[in-house]
Amino acid sequence: MSYPINNQRLWDRLMSLGEIGGTVKGGCCRLALTELDRQARDTFIDWCKDLGCEISIDQIGNIFARKAGTGAGTAAIATGSHLDTQPTGGKFDGMLGCLAGLEVLESLRDHNLHHEHPIEICIWTNEEGARFAPAMLASGAYSGKFTLEYALSRADHEGITVGEALHAIGYRGDEPVGGREHREFYELHIEQGPVLENEELEIGVVSGVLGMRWYDLKLSGTPAHAGPTPMSYRKDALYAASKIICALYELALSRPEGDARFTSGELRIDKSSRNVIPGDLTMTVDLRHAELQGLQQLEEDARAIIAQISQTTGVEAELECIWDSPPLAFSSDCVAAVKAASERSKLPHKLMVSGAGHDAVNMSTVVPTSMIFIPSVGGISHNESEYSTPEQVANGTQILFDLICDRAHTSANNS
Amino acid sequence: MSYPINNQRLWDRLMSLGEIGGTVKGGCCRLALTELDRQARDTFIDWCKDLGCEISIDQIGNIFARKAGTGAGTAAIATGSHLDTQPTGGKFDGMLGCLAGLEVLESLRDHNLHHEHPIEICIWTNEEGARFAPAMLASGAYSGKFTLEYALSRADHEGITVGEALHAIGYRGDEPVGGREHREFYELHIEQGPVLENEELEIGVVSGVLGMRWYDLKLSGTPAHAGPTPMSYRKDALYAASKIICALYELALSRPEGDARFTSGELRIDKSSRNVIPGDLTMTVDLRHAELQGLQQLEEDARAIIAQISQTTGVEAELECIWDSPPLAFSSDCVAAVKAASERSKLPHKLMVSGAGHDAVNMSTVVPTSMIFIPSVGGISHNESEYSTPEQVANGTQILFDLICDRAHTSANNS
Repeated sequence: MSYPINNQRLWDRLMSLGEIGGTVKGGCCRLALTELDRQARDTFIDWCKDLGCEISIDQIGNIFARKAGTGAGTAAIATGSHLDTQPTGGKFDGMLGCLAGLEVLESLRDHNLHHEHPIEICIWTNEEGARFAPAMLASGAYSGKFTLEYALSRADHEGITVGEALHAIGYRGDEPVGGREHREFYELHIEQGPVLENEELEIGVVSGVLGMRWYDLKLSGTPAHAGPTPMSYRKDALYAASKIICALYELALSRPEGDARFTSGELRIDKSSRNVIPGDLTMTVDLRHAELQGLQQLEEDARAIIAQISQTTGVEAELECIWDSPPLAFSSDCVAAVKAASERSKLPHKLMVSGAGHDAVNMSTVVPTSMIFIPSVGGISHNESEYSTPEQVANGTQILFDLICDRAHTSANNS
Repeated sequence: MSYPINNQRLWDRLMSLGEIGGTVKGGCCRLALTELDRQARDTFIDWCKDLGCEISIDQIGNIFARKAGTGAGTAAIATGSHLDTQPTGGKFDGMLGCLAGLEVLESLRDHNLHHEHPIEICIWTNEEGARFAPAMLASGAYSGKFTLEYALSRADHEGITVGEALHAIGYRGDEPVGGREHREFYELHIEQGPVLENEELEIGVVSGVLGMRWYDLKLSGTPAHAGPTPMSYRKDALYAASKIICALYELALSRPEGDARFTSGELRIDKSSRNVIPGDLTMTVDLRHAELQGLQQLEEDARAIIAQISQTTGVEAELECIWDSPPLAFSSDCVAAVKAASERSKLPHKLMVSGAGHDAVNMSTVVPTSMIFIPSVGGISHNESEYSTPEQVANGTQILFDLICDRAHTSANNS
């Protein structure tokens, strides 16, 4: 049977936590390891302590709030997300996953429920990467992707390192990073895309993450005067770039729905001037695909397209891969558990892959993991107008609660 | 009959004048109304005085070096160009036209030739527009396109006005601007494009100037995360821009050779980031055509293309025309005179329109005008590697000399 969570309490806390760094436009600006981040962390820890959680803080500032189970096992069912935001972020990205974990523990108490396995809420430091690059830094350190030394040495624009910032707000803990006792990890998150809303679905059962390759593309044509140079004499780097963008866009669009993505987010013309034919430019290429073979094929097709356009336009092209993150499949067992909870809820749902990175992606390399998505209104995120309705927030959290009840072997307290 | 000019003297003076502001890469950096400009002006005036020229300087710093004729008429056959350069300019753009005028007077003296009409060399202030915008400022003031007050008030990046800069280098003359007695004006200039070289021609007989319209195009799509947003949900402003650039480029290319030009020289994505789908961008559109009707049709076709791409991509487009310069035909009499001189020379030549603006374009609005082009090696200009061979420089100057001899009614001095 399913016990109801307290939707109002959850929503009130979400709104109240978002006021720490709240912006006039209704968003939140709470960069990692700032004084505002400290206030949010303190508040969250106070709420966890009220529920009888044991708090641990590791050397990279990750917070673990553990509620002991009634059984002999010490490996917890873990959930959580992050409390930092983008500079003009919203109140949902990250915060929802943290507060949903808290609501799970609150509801267990409300309904006087036992759980055999421990339950643990994880708050990951610097997920956004907005103050300290790269993103998902501390879950990366936790999962062994980054060394602790590397993570502590990352610096912001003012040269302040993560280590110094942790010390300044009192969150440089003693616990070694990594290796906590977890059976499984689940992260509830907003979708940050338009799919669920457009397909009128309430829940995304996340089976994995798109593979991603980032490239820098340099195009070298011949800068020349716009006036005296007839069209047939030109080696116009922006024309070559435009042909490449059109072809790669249409390549990604031609793949089965949702499988492939192409984005060029940055394009800069060297010494650009209104009446000079662009000679040199650099642009970014971001290719994503759900499957490794598909990603490889996408790259091969892209390379062939670029070579062919380079030849026909007389503009030299140099494509350099600067990052390669393979597609990732979450634990089939955990995905099945999220799917089962969604089915029991009768909420319309579908299996989907995440296009963006999350702390859960790092966690999935060390513990069986899955994620739950709820719709983002208008598909908007990393923006002060980021929003999900109270009902959507409640739906996702109810799924997480039901799932954790199931996985932690919850039962009515007969004592 | 044709008298030979002194090719070596001409080339030596071109190289020597280019050393005032000469760069290590062999170019010239001599911005308008700087101390270097003053040195070049002083040197040029000294040479003219040696030839017995009367020097006048007007209130915008234009220099007029007049050699009286033997006849009663006071209207001169005028020629000239400018002494200022781009920041990384060459030694030919402008300087050639000034020194060719000087060589005409030198050769007349060498061969002891009379000329019935006066001959005048005009040196126009701030043609490049590199220090003070707009370009062709002082020939514009001379021809009544700009008021003197406007021209004097233009300021550089440091806030120094043209008036102040003229005063500082001692070239704020007394003579009122405009209205000097000229019968005709001819300007010898490098082509600054690739056509003559590619067609293995030595002389361009310039019949007019392309019409030109400048636009700003704003595109507004929806910024969104590159990862979570499937292709079919996107309103990608850079994709729309790319489609527009491809279509307008191919539109201009489809017109009869040399008639039409499309250039997008600047493109800026607002808040661009590697993994964000471009939401808003601005780009420039530069359309040129030899005929007014053709230019109008080009604009109409461009507007239709942009509207159609806006509709199919869901990206809003706003096209604003910020400058409109109609096509201009030079005096048919002057063009015929240049053509006749070219024919007599037996040098391979063709009629062509200038794609770029020149002081001669302003002059053509007040006096019958034409231009002579010589090849630019590699079509390169506004660059330190700008070059024309000694033979090309001599060929063009010989044509100018023959032409002026003809138009000024030159005859052997029998005294």
